[in-house]
Amino acid sequence: MGDVTKQLAVLGSTGSIGQQVLDVVRALRHRFHIVGLAGGDNTELLAEQINEFQPRFVYYLDKAKAPQTDISYEFLLLEEMASHPYVDTAVIATSGKAGLGPTLAAVKAGKNVALANKESLVMAGEIITNEAKIHSAQILPIDSEHSAIWQCLSGERQEVAQLILTASGGPFYHYSPEQLSRVTIKQALSHPSWQMGKKVTIDSATLMNKGLEVIEARWLFDMPFEKIKVLIHPQSIMHSMVEFVDGSIKAQLSYPDMRLPIQYALSYPERLPNPRLPRLDWSNITKLTFDQPDWETFPCLKIATEAGKKGGTYPAVLCAADEVAVELFLSGRIKFIDIPGLIEQTLEEHQAITHPSLEEILATDAWARGKIEQLATGDNR
Amino acid sequence: MGDVTKQLAVLGSTGSIGQQVLDVVRALRHRFHIVGLAGGDNTELLAEQINEFQPRFVYYLDKAKAPQTDISYEFLLLEEMASHPYVDTAVIATSGKAGLGPTLAAVKAGKNVALANKESLVMAGEIITNEAKIHSAQILPIDSEHSAIWQCLSGERQEVAQLILTASGGPFYHYSPEQLSRVTIKQALSHPSWQMGKKVTIDSATLMNKGLEVIEARWLFDMPFEKIKVLIHPQSIMHSMVEFVDGSIKAQLSYPDMRLPIQYALSYPERLPNPRLPRLDWSNITKLTFDQPDWETFPCLKIATEAGKKGGTYPAVLCAADEVAVELFLSGRIKFIDIPGLIEQTLEEHQAITHPSLEEILATDAWARGKIEQLATGDNR
Repeated sequence: MGDVTKQLAVLGSTGSIGQQVLDVVRALRHRFHIVGLAGGDNTELLAEQINEFQPRFVYYLDKAKAPQTDISYEFLLLEEMASHPYVDTAVIATSGKAGLGPTLAAVKAGKNVALANKESLVMAGEIITNEAKIHSAQILPIDSEHSAIWQCLSGERQEVAQLILTASGGPFYHYSPEQLSRVTIKQALSHPSWQMGKKVTIDSATLMNKGLEVIEARWLFDMPFEKIKVLIHPQSIMHSMVEFVDGSIKAQLSYPDMRLPIQYALSYPERLPNPRLPRLDWSNITKLTFDQPDWETFPCLKIATEAGKKGGTYPAVLCAADEVAVELFLSGRIKFIDIPGLIEQTLEEHQAITHPSLEEILATDAWARGKIEQLATGDNR
Repeated sequence: MGDVTKQLAVLGSTGSIGQQVLDVVRALRHRFHIVGLAGGDNTELLAEQINEFQPRFVYYLDKAKAPQTDISYEFLLLEEMASHPYVDTAVIATSGKAGLGPTLAAVKAGKNVALANKESLVMAGEIITNEAKIHSAQILPIDSEHSAIWQCLSGERQEVAQLILTASGGPFYHYSPEQLSRVTIKQALSHPSWQMGKKVTIDSATLMNKGLEVIEARWLFDMPFEKIKVLIHPQSIMHSMVEFVDGSIKAQLSYPDMRLPIQYALSYPERLPNPRLPRLDWSNITKLTFDQPDWETFPCLKIATEAGKKGGTYPAVLCAADEVAVELFLSGRIKFIDIPGLIEQTLEEHQAITHPSLEEILATDAWARGKIEQLATGDNR
C-alpha cells in the first residue's frame, strides 16, 4: 500500500460524524483526498467545507439553495457520488434511511464503504451484505462499538464465542420507571460520555441505540443474535469486546472520540499517527465499571433484539417507528417513557415480509411512519 | 492445518506450569500428543505422568532415582529432547537457568518453543532471538502478560506506540516501607490473585517479576524499553495491553488461569474450545481498577529495567542475584526488604561484558551467585 492517497466521498459531511470525518482528513491530508462532499440543509457549512477541501463533486438537498463557493464543482446525486469511479472509499455519514440508497450503490460498485449510518444495515442488512459479497465490497464500520469488535477480530480466525457490545447506559442509567416518566427533553439530550447528534443521543437514553447496534453487529460480523451480548460500561472507554472459543477476551479501549473509529475505517489496514487524537492517560483512569443492562426499565433493547431476530421487514418498522417516536418526543408531543410502547405497538400491527426487496423495505418504512403517527395521535386524544 | 496432532516435549512437567500444561493436554488429547516429559526431583509425580501420557522420551535429574513406571521409555538429556526430530513444540517450563540450554537447542533446531522460563530471555535474549531468526524458530510466550500482548498484536502491523504490562501489585500493594520491613515468608507466599510456584510468588511480591517481564517483552516483541510501561491492575483480569500509533488500545482479558496462555501457545494459530477453562462472568465483574506502580517502595522494578537497558551481562547478574536473594529470604537468612539492596549491590560490583557468549553468560551467573552470597553473609556478621 505504501503512502497512497485515498479518494473519499463524504456523504453527510455537515452532520456530527461528517464534520469529524473532515477533521481526521485535515490532520492526514497527505493520505486522504476529498473527491465529493454531500450535505443536507446546512448549505453555509457545506460552502465552507467546499472552499476548504475543493471537492470535484458536491450534493446538496435543496436545488434552489446551492452553496455559494469560491470554486466550481459538479453536482452529483448521492448514489452517483458514492459509486463514482474516482472514489475509493464512500463514507456514509448521512442519518436515517437516506443512507440506504447510497450505501447500496457504493456496495454494488465494489467500493470500500465506511459506514456510520445505522439504518442501512438495520433495515436492509441481508441485501447489503449479500451485495457486498457479490461485488467484493468491504463494509468498514465507523460506530465505536463495531470498530472495536472489528479491531479485536483482526488476525483472528472464525473462532468467536460471543461479541460483547458495551453501552454507557445513557443519561438515565439507574433511573427508576417513575423517574423516567418525568425526564425532560434537555435531560435526554445530555449524554454523560459522548457528544453526538440529537437522534443518536435520544436513542442512547432509551438504549434503542444499543438495540440497533446489536442488529448491525449481526450483519457486519455474520453472527447469530444468541452470540451478541450487551454490557453496561458507563465510562465509555472499553468500546466492545470479543470472546473467543478458548475463553480469551479481546477488548478495544480509547477515550470516547469518534475520530478514532473514523480514522481506523479510513486508514485500514494501516494505523496512522494523528496528534489530534487523545491518548488514554492511565494516571487518570483508576477504574472501569461494568453492569448488566436493565431490560425491564429500558425495554427498547429487547424490542430491537426481538425485531432483529424476527427479521424480514420488522427491523425496518423498528427504525422508522423509532425515528418518528424520537421526533415526537423532541417536539414535545409524547413523553420519553412513551417511546418504547409506541414502537412496540407499531411492530405488533405489522404484517411482515420475509426476505423483502428494497422496494418492500421502503414501503414498510412509509407504512410504519404513518402507523406510529396514528398511534401517537390516538393516544393524545 | 486442520486437525493435526502436535507432538510436544514438556520440560519441567512436574512443576506448577508443567502440571497445567498436562492439564491442557488432558482436555485436548485429540490435538496434542506428549512425546517427551522431563521432571526434576519429584520422580513419583513424574512416574505418574509417564504412566498417564506414555511418552517415548523421559528425563529426570538424578540418574540413581529413575521413575518406576509400568511402561518403558528412553532417557534423553534436556537439550536432546527439546530438539528431537519427533518434537513439534518444545514446552520450556523448567525454572531458573536450567531452561537456557534446552531453549537454545530447540531454537537452533527450528522448533516452536512455548516458553514459560523467564531466565532464558532475560539472560540470553539477544542470542536466543538471533538464533530464532536464523533457524525460523517461533518463540511462543506462555506468561499471561506476554501472551496477552501477543494476542493483541495478532493481525496488526508494526504500528505499536507502547506495550502496557499489567501487574497485580502482589500481596504488599499499598504497603509502606515500614510495613514491608516486617513481612513474613508466609505473607510473601500468599499471592492475592495467582497460584504459582514459590520463586515467582516472591518475585511478584517484590515486583521483580514484572521487571523480568519487561526485559522479556523487549526481546519477544523487539521493542525498546522506552515503549514498555507497567500498570498496576490488582484483579489480574486484564493481562496486558498494546497501544497503537493511532491511540487505539487493545487488551486481553480472562480469569487469572495459566492454562489459557498455555493452551494458546500450544494451539496457535488456532483457538480451541476447552470446557476446563473458566469464562469471564460479567455478572460478577463490576469493576477493574488501575494504578501506577510505586517505584520507590518496590525498587526491584526499576533495578530490573535499568539492568535490561544496560544489557550485556547485567540481566544475567540480575537473574542470578534475584534467585539467590529469594532463596536467602525463603530460608530466613535475610529480610524481605533486604532483597532489592543486595541485588543492586551485586549489579554495581559487576564488570559487564557487552554482547556476551553463552559461556560468558553462564560464568557471569556463577560469579553473581557467589557475590550476592558473600554480600549477604557480610551483612549478617
